[in-house]
Amino acid sequence: MQKTNSENKQNSKHLPPSVKERLPKYYRTLRALIGTDILRTSSGELGKIMKLTPSQVRQDFSYLGGVGHQGYGYNVKDLYSVIGNAIGIPLNYSAIIVCRKTDFASVLSTDQCFSTRGVNLKMIFTDKCGDFTPSELMKFEDSKKEKLTEQITNQAYLRAADYCRRTGTEIVVLACDKDETDIAAIALADAGVRGIWNFSGKDIEIKDKNISVLNLNLHDILLGICSEITNIRQNLPNE
Amino acid sequence: MQKTNSENKQNSKHLPPSVKERLPKYYRTLRALIGTDILRTSSGELGKIMKLTPSQVRQDFSYLGGVGHQGYGYNVKDLYSVIGNAIGIPLNYSAIIVCRKTDFASVLSTDQCFSTRGVNLKMIFTDKCGDFTPSELMKFEDSKKEKLTEQITNQAYLRAADYCRRTGTEIVVLACDKDETDIAAIALADAGVRGIWNFSGKDIEIKDKNISVLNLNLHDILLGICSEITNIRQNLPNE
Repeated sequence: MQKTNSENKQNSKHLPPSVKERLPKYYRTLRALIGTDILRTSSGELGKIMKLTPSQVRQDFSYLGGVGHQGYGYNVKDLYSVIGNAIGIPLNYSAIIVCRKTDFASVLSTDQCFSTRGVNLKMIFTDKCGDFTPSELMKFEDSKKEKLTEQITNQAYLRAADYCRRTGTEIVVLACDKDETDIAAIALADAGVRGIWNFSGKDIEIKDKNISVLNLNLHDILLGICSEITNIRQNLPNE
Repeated sequence: MQKTNSENKQNSKHLPPSVKERLPKYYRTLRALIGTDILRTSSGELGKIMKLTPSQVRQDFSYLGGVGHQGYGYNVKDLYSVIGNAIGIPLNYSAIIVCRKTDFASVLSTDQCFSTRGVNLKMIFTDKCGDFTPSELMKFEDSKKEKLTEQITNQAYLRAADYCRRTGTEIVVLACDKDETDIAAIALADAGVRGIWNFSGKDIEIKDKNISVLNLNLHDILLGICSEITNIRQNLPNE
């Protein structure tokens, strides 16, 4: 018997990139609804927030299996949990940060970027100041005192790769020097890391399709804003 | 006389969003070529780096007016300058940072995110430690001493908006508290700011189409990586 198109979609585990991209915003939106005690929603309401048509929202959810009930809409908590599962929240991923100085790690960890999203930030490896657990980092940043008495003998990414291999850590936030990006990525991939969030300013291109790499180039983003401003400026009637 | 399609393109100042998005990476790529003394390139070569077909590259450049010569390809320095113009590098935009603590500003300014891209970082306004020029910030971060003797009487975004109004600053990097995002965005737009790079974790929605807003939600990015890893995991043959 041939499967219908919609059955195929529900059974396929591969989410289309556009749907995958939207999951975090759905998750954030539903979290906010729960925070304001809204327990029931509709594709229309969600579409308004997500800037999608109701049918696009329904189509997105069709990839996640059976959610929502005809005539009722969506139970917010159920939907939050279905989307959380698709993201992998219950898998409780572990993460580490590799950076030059502590300030980078301090920004990400005080922002609670990890803990509020179910990701366990385990360690911070720095080139300049040694290695920290998140709570050690907090104390270090408060006291502004040197932590290190022992000598730092190798690059942070090497200590990080070793740690990931030993502990099965899945995610690395990489903010190393640009010169080290390629070699660090190879070492981390070799250590079994599953995802690299790359802040180093040099794109990582890994052939292994089983590793997820996100290149976030802050320079490019700044220039993107400049280019938008320039384009708007050139099209203003009085300029 | 009717204009040809290609003439229309060249005269139109509105760049398609996909082209605008690619300009920073083109700029970065050409910069790297210049750094390695490569002075001539082709749409094929650029396409390989940009992951585009040669004809997509040529089409992108068709929006920028007359670049490249049949049979020669592109003069790298000329192309770098044409793309720099489209981004607005020669306009030398000014920027400020609004944040809670100095560590956020310290990450962005030591990364030379601004200076190497022709953007003039003028001031850093913080909620916790007062206001700094970039060089004051560097000294503060080195000495780790309290700078402030005077009392901080209002929110950083208010001092920032006042500064932008007085100086005509175009770009604000906003990393304020989530609760303040909306009101800060209104104050900054009212002060004439042209672009907001929003790190606050709450999306800014400004109706004024003449302001460019980039919402960069770090939580969403982290969850995007989790969701990729989860998706890859579910599709591995042995899991």
